[in-house]
Amino acid sequence: MGKYVYLFHEGNASKKDLLGGKGANLAEMTGLGLPVPRGFTVTTEACTRYYNDGRAIGVDIEGEILKMLRTLENNIGKKFGDLDNPLLVSVRSGSRASMPGMMDTILNLGLNDEVVVGLAKLTSNERFAYDSYRRFIQMFGDVVMDVKKEKFEEILSEAKKSKNLKSDTELTAEDLKAIVVKYKELFLREKGSEFPQKPKEQLIMAIKAVFRSWENDRAVVYRRLNDIPADWGTAVNVQEMVYGNMGDDCGTGVAFTRNPNTGEKKIYGEFLLNAQGEDVVAGIRTPQPLEHLEKVNPVAYRELLNIAETLEKHYRDMQDMEFTVERGKLFMLQTRNGKRTGVAALKIAVDLVNEEVLSEEEALMKVDPKQLDALLHPNFDPVTLKAATPIGKGLPASPGAATGKIYFDAKDAVDAFNAGEKQIILIRAETSPEDIEGMNVAEGILTSRGGMTSHAAVVARGMGKCCIAGCDDLAINEKDKCFVAEDGTKYCEGDWISINGTSGFVYGEKLPTIEADMSEEFDTVMFWADKFRTLKVRTNADTPKDAAAAIKFGAEGIGLCRTEHMFFEEDRIAAMREMIISNTEEQRRRALEKILPMQKADFEGIFRVMKGRPVTIRLLDPPLHEFLPQKDSDIKALAEDMGIGHDDLVGIVAQLHETNPMLGNRGCRLAIMYPEIAEVQTRAIIEAAINVTKEGVSVSPEIMIPLVCDNRELLYVKNIVVETADRLIREAGTKLDYLVGTMIEIPRACLTADIIAKDADFFSFGTNDLTQMTYGLSRDDAGRILDTYFDKKIFEYDPTTKIDPQGVGRLMKMAVELARCVKKDIKLGICGEHGGDPSSVEFCHNIGMEYVSCSPYRVPIAKLAAAQAMVNTFVQTC
Amino acid sequence: MGKYVYLFHEGNASKKDLLGGKGANLAEMTGLGLPVPRGFTVTTEACTRYYNDGRAIGVDIEGEILKMLRTLENNIGKKFGDLDNPLLVSVRSGSRASMPGMMDTILNLGLNDEVVVGLAKLTSNERFAYDSYRRFIQMFGDVVMDVKKEKFEEILSEAKKSKNLKSDTELTAEDLKAIVVKYKELFLREKGSEFPQKPKEQLIMAIKAVFRSWENDRAVVYRRLNDIPADWGTAVNVQEMVYGNMGDDCGTGVAFTRNPNTGEKKIYGEFLLNAQGEDVVAGIRTPQPLEHLEKVNPVAYRELLNIAETLEKHYRDMQDMEFTVERGKLFMLQTRNGKRTGVAALKIAVDLVNEEVLSEEEALMKVDPKQLDALLHPNFDPVTLKAATPIGKGLPASPGAATGKIYFDAKDAVDAFNAGEKQIILIRAETSPEDIEGMNVAEGILTSRGGMTSHAAVVARGMGKCCIAGCDDLAINEKDKCFVAEDGTKYCEGDWISINGTSGFVYGEKLPTIEADMSEEFDTVMFWADKFRTLKVRTNADTPKDAAAAIKFGAEGIGLCRTEHMFFEEDRIAAMREMIISNTEEQRRRALEKILPMQKADFEGIFRVMKGRPVTIRLLDPPLHEFLPQKDSDIKALAEDMGIGHDDLVGIVAQLHETNPMLGNRGCRLAIMYPEIAEVQTRAIIEAAINVTKEGVSVSPEIMIPLVCDNRELLYVKNIVVETADRLIREAGTKLDYLVGTMIEIPRACLTADIIAKDADFFSFGTNDLTQMTYGLSRDDAGRILDTYFDKKIFEYDPTTKIDPQGVGRLMKMAVELARCVKKDIKLGICGEHGGDPSSVEFCHNIGMEYVSCSPYRVPIAKLAAAQAMVNTFVQTC
Repeated sequence: MGKYVYLFHEGNASKKDLLGGKGANLAEMTGLGLPVPRGFTVTTEACTRYYNDGRAIGVDIEGEILKMLRTLENNIGKKFGDLDNPLLVSVRSGSRASMPGMMDTILNLGLNDEVVVGLAKLTSNERFAYDSYRRFIQMFGDVVMDVKKEKFEEILSEAKKSKNLKSDTELTAEDLKAIVVKYKELFLREKGSEFPQKPKEQLIMAIKAVFRSWENDRAVVYRRLNDIPADWGTAVNVQEMVYGNMGDDCGTGVAFTRNPNTGEKKIYGEFLLNAQGEDVVAGIRTPQPLEHLEKVNPVAYRELLNIAETLEKHYRDMQDMEFTVERGKLFMLQTRNGKRTGVAALKIAVDLVNEEVLSEEEALMKVDPKQLDALLHPNFDPVTLKAATPIGKGLPASPGAATGKIYFDAKDAVDAFNAGEKQIILIRAETSPEDIEGMNVAEGILTSRGGMTSHAAVVARGMGKCCIAGCDDLAINEKDKCFVAEDGTKYCEGDWISINGTSGFVYGEKLPTIEADMSEEFDTVMFWADKFRTLKVRTNADTPKDAAAAIKFGAEGIGLCRTEHMFFEEDRIAAMREMIISNTEEQRRRALEKILPMQKADFEGIFRVMKGRPVTIRLLDPPLHEFLPQKDSDIKALAEDMGIGHDDLVGIVAQLHETNPMLGNRGCRLAIMYPEIAEVQTRAIIEAAINVTKEGVSVSPEIMIPLVCDNRELLYVKNIVVETADRLIREAGTKLDYLVGTMIEIPRACLTADIIAKDADFFSFGTNDLTQMTYGLSRDDAGRILDTYFDKKIFEYDPTTKIDPQGVGRLMKMAVELARCVKKDIKLGICGEHGGDPSSVEFCHNIGMEYVSCSPYRVPIAKLAAAQAMVNTFVQTC
Repeated sequence: MGKYVYLFHEGNASKKDLLGGKGANLAEMTGLGLPVPRGFTVTTEACTRYYNDGRAIGVDIEGEILKMLRTLENNIGKKFGDLDNPLLVSVRSGSRASMPGMMDTILNLGLNDEVVVGLAKLTSNERFAYDSYRRFIQMFGDVVMDVKKEKFEEILSEAKKSKNLKSDTELTAEDLKAIVVKYKELFLREKGSEFPQKPKEQLIMAIKAVFRSWENDRAVVYRRLNDIPADWGTAVNVQEMVYGNMGDDCGTGVAFTRNPNTGEKKIYGEFLLNAQGEDVVAGIRTPQPLEHLEKVNPVAYRELLNIAETLEKHYRDMQDMEFTVERGKLFMLQTRNGKRTGVAALKIAVDLVNEEVLSEEEALMKVDPKQLDALLHPNFDPVTLKAATPIGKGLPASPGAATGKIYFDAKDAVDAFNAGEKQIILIRAETSPEDIEGMNVAEGILTSRGGMTSHAAVVARGMGKCCIAGCDDLAINEKDKCFVAEDGTKYCEGDWISINGTSGFVYGEKLPTIEADMSEEFDTVMFWADKFRTLKVRTNADTPKDAAAAIKFGAEGIGLCRTEHMFFEEDRIAAMREMIISNTEEQRRRALEKILPMQKADFEGIFRVMKGRPVTIRLLDPPLHEFLPQKDSDIKALAEDMGIGHDDLVGIVAQLHETNPMLGNRGCRLAIMYPEIAEVQTRAIIEAAINVTKEGVSVSPEIMIPLVCDNRELLYVKNIVVETADRLIREAGTKLDYLVGTMIEIPRACLTADIIAKDADFFSFGTNDLTQMTYGLSRDDAGRILDTYFDKKIFEYDPTTKIDPQGVGRLMKMAVELARCVKKDIKLGICGEHGGDPSSVEFCHNIGMEYVSCSPYRVPIAKLAAAQAMVNTFVQTC
């Protein structure tokens, strides 16, 4: 018998889990004495009950809601459904974390055919009353009853068109009355029943719709992308309406206490006169800068400034606020910690420390590591950029630069991505939560409508992706999948464009990019991260160039240098193929000898760049057939090239074919079958190390044996490595320390880690393969399965992107404990792609690894995540 | 500073681990006061030291051996290398378990060019002395120095041929002298040095050769097939020579205290006059029945009978003894528990209980579960057999019947087996340890030479395979891969023959077989097994026929009924294919509806046979592409059949193609993608159960959801199953209990067993897939890898044949503990092929499973293994 409904003044910010973010902050603002319209919150626990009760609101909860409604009526002195003094409310969802995928808001609930008449009389504003009613029917119809929004908008457009009007505000009361009639007809046609007239019924239906929206597809996708558990549920806020649409002394807007794009310490926002909240967010009308409010209502503007300062001090973070001005009076409808770009996050974090609002540890926690990604990615080369002529300009909604092929539909973008296209620009008139997967695969997003706080802009910033919004210079035709620029040039699906999310300029060509310049704030935050973190961060790099880039980002070593990539270059693949088709050890050795000097040169280059930092080099790993052509024409060409019979080569290719190559002949299995491969690779590594040592550069090679499932495999290959290395070092008369370890990427390696550890100087967890084998799910084949699993809410995220703590994580933890049991000081790290994922980094920190290794651009992300993990540990143990 | 060498009277049978089986038993017999030639044993620990010291005998150990040699010389009063009274010894290997793969024996060690003269003088028997010397050179040359035995035998044959002699015994002293000269020349030619003349050097070389033989290929293969760990090592026995080759009052033989083929309580064996031990074992001369000894030396025969009785009573088991008669006097050279056929094992076990020698528990432990296999396999149909005319007859060396294609070389047999040929008869003139892998894949073995204790006979009995030995009716030509029967018919590689190992008859055709009739002793032992075991035994059966066979063997339920096999039948595959190529749920349902009545009929049949015993039915498991043709011509035919475009079907086949099908779209993933499959299968099961219940037969269906890696998968499919089942039961107005559980065959399922168990009535471990994923090794691709791993001593056995306790076993144990943690009474079993492997059954018993499930013929094996596991547990806890 819990309490499922709280008045705003019963709650506060600490009750976020129960009241949701929006509800908790409304309660907190109420407590601070700010002008907040009264209301109550139905808790997240009520949502959980809703699902447990088979998608039904229990009688007890409904009773509590209606009781609280009466309290609200008494407090306000208005009554639901009262013709003289009607109470109207907004109904808004609000989970612990902000979730754009969910149903957001229904305004003006409580209106019906009779109340609207009363409201007109009461406010002496018939236009306002019918505008409110048509908005309510539209929103309720759309989000509660699933009548397509477009059908309402068609009626609205028709009405404007027939009178040749541009803006909704030009519609008269009579126009709106006619629209209401048509809306209701539409509703009846679509749903087979009249638009609900009983306010209490409307309320319960709306609350149910909010609960339902927690499990809609968009919400599920959003949760997956943002690691939000399904069992959190959402709260519902029921709040007295205030009206921004009562006339030109009214309006609605959003404001940030600091600039969310740059971090500049100056209030920033947008404002729409005579409008209700959804007009701003939906990007239907392009709003004006906040400064406009100062002109039309300086008192309200100053009050907003004061409130902004109060809230930022109170919350010790940049705030994102929604407000409405009703007949000149300011009301606060929401506040929350504001989303911001990576640049802004860094600047705000550093400024708040300088302003002595936050400690360094606290400030570190204010930067989402994932956001750094955008900062580190290339910008356009300024020289080329100067020469390029923009074909249009829009709002610089999310900073960064992107170049890619254009797609006009989220699904097309996803399909192109799945087909291998990695540079994609998604172009939409405006985006909606349905587009989220398309946005996720795109490098950048461009919309022709909507402002800086439109859906596209907010989501792109959150994703750290470059975005230009409201770019109406381009005439976008979504149906024909093309746009026409102002100069008349037509760009169609698959054409290249480039967009600059920092300036807002669009270019009709593929522009070269250069690496990002890091800001001073970036350096400061990284300095703090280095100060607090204990987990080391290495990089995955196969070339001196990658290694150098990673060093620039602060990599502390190479955690994974894949030697096979070195063999795919044109001058090497021939020797590699010669080795594969060899029949005897002698032939194989001859081919390997050709590869040796090239490999050696690679390693020398890497060792020089790494200047004594540890370099983990993995011995040849992939199945040999990957190096051979598969198409018959290519086989024919190769056979001629290699001077062997076509049939013989076909035979070799067929012989190397495997039913399940992931579980086949690769990794150390290759070295066991052909020990000379391990021997020659060891020679290349050790000879390179000796040469570079002689140049006076210190070297720390770590030789890694992949795909071990049994300690005797490791031992067999290790013996070859050690014998070869020690002989070379002895012959060279130098001293050289090196380690020999193994990649832990097969479940059995984790299970027998205590046995394997005895023979290994280090373990590096290869979480890509480990995840696939632990799940019994190959990444190459998972596409359709994962889509189905996401749809059916079986999986919330792709386990190859984030360490699964229940399964793979348990196995890793077990391996760490078993290994430490027999060898306390064994070096433990991770080199799977999870190494650059913040939650996985935290996991690695928590189970006591020494380092993570990730791609160069993700090194700062990993460092920040490592520092945050350390601060979290500290907080938890205090 | 351990003690590495023991005199026989210092040891006893309990020191088997240290002295090896042979050494311990020689010591034990010495202790019993039996006539055993004196000697000492170099321990297994010395062997381990040999390998740890880099294949060298430490100075300390060599010193100890030579010191012990002096003690022996003093005790006996003869001296190594002494010309007047020389000591000669035999050197024999002997590990804890009998291992035919290892070097066995070198006789007459201590002879050289001078000692042989002294020996001739001492014994006044020059012929004997030179016969001994040529034997020594040949054996030492072969087993110590690796000079091919055939080359020596060529010289011997040549000598006999030139004098037109039939038997070795007809060679004179002069003949043998000449042979010795030629042998030594051969040795010099082959090895580039003279035959070693210093006895002590000979001894150390021989001991090293025994140690070395522990790691030879045959020994490694034998260990793998018999689960003997590599680190046990072998001991070496050095023993004063006694001579069976001094004349016609001498001889050598082997004897069993009971008949090893039938178990009959009567001494049984073979004897060769004027011969040394290897002549009997190698099958070079065909020996005479033991009764012959009674005629030529009744005193020695009676003494042997007495000793046999003493030893059997002492060891409380049937003994296999080697003996030599030197000038009328009996010497015992070895005793051990005798290998026996399955039939004999059962009879001896039951008899020993009746004779009050053993308790039932002890007797149970005397039967190797693996041996039951042969008993349970089909025999020839007596009617057809009566009509068939044998083409030859040999010794009935190992009972049972086999029919198959003939191969004349072990390698050819293995290749044919790997190419898919499952019915193979291996034909050899005589077998040697090199043939062991060929014997392993054959259904039966036939040799033209050798007796009942020849290599072929002993090994075949151990393997439980049918064998005919010494069948000289057939003229075998190994080189041309054919044989000619007495009637002149020629049979070549790939032709069919049938052999009856119980009667010794060979048939030149494929004969139909019928099921085995179980003996009374079988029933008794099974009765004991049922009495002692706690682990239940179910069967894997997909048809009423299989189920009925398993019930006959005592199966207590079906642990795995695979529904997909039901779809491969000709009348069903069309409907299955129609389902696969369906584009919509409607189409799929239409196709499934066609399959439904057939599935239902299958289940009804099974339920009727099982009469209320639990029946675990697995929902559709394999990837859908397995049901579609892959070759273009087949695709074309199917497209026409199904009335769809060829290109469309090619597209569907291509779309279903997976990179790693083992880690792809199968198991519960199919049911999640196409819920209607699970729904229709549930209907078939439940409707069948309801129908059979109405017939008055009780039914216990257990519906198993395969390939679960996450509890939400289970939940999703379980919901479909439960909704469908409960609705049908409600509609039928009956009561029906059923369970819904899951197959645990993905590592993550084990790791999250505590979560999954909450939603599962039972777990059934699918150890086939679990092993492959845990090892990261697909059985389809493991062939070459495993061969290499066996060669390089990385793996000792194929993990898909026996549960790997360190890896897969650890995971299973973890899953059992996690599951029991949240659901104490969850039903736990195993249905992988490991369920019929005795060591795996023991493992399952030990981790607390409720049942194992295996193929019908292995049910008795599993029951016996389960009983032995229980007895072992009992012994351990006492």
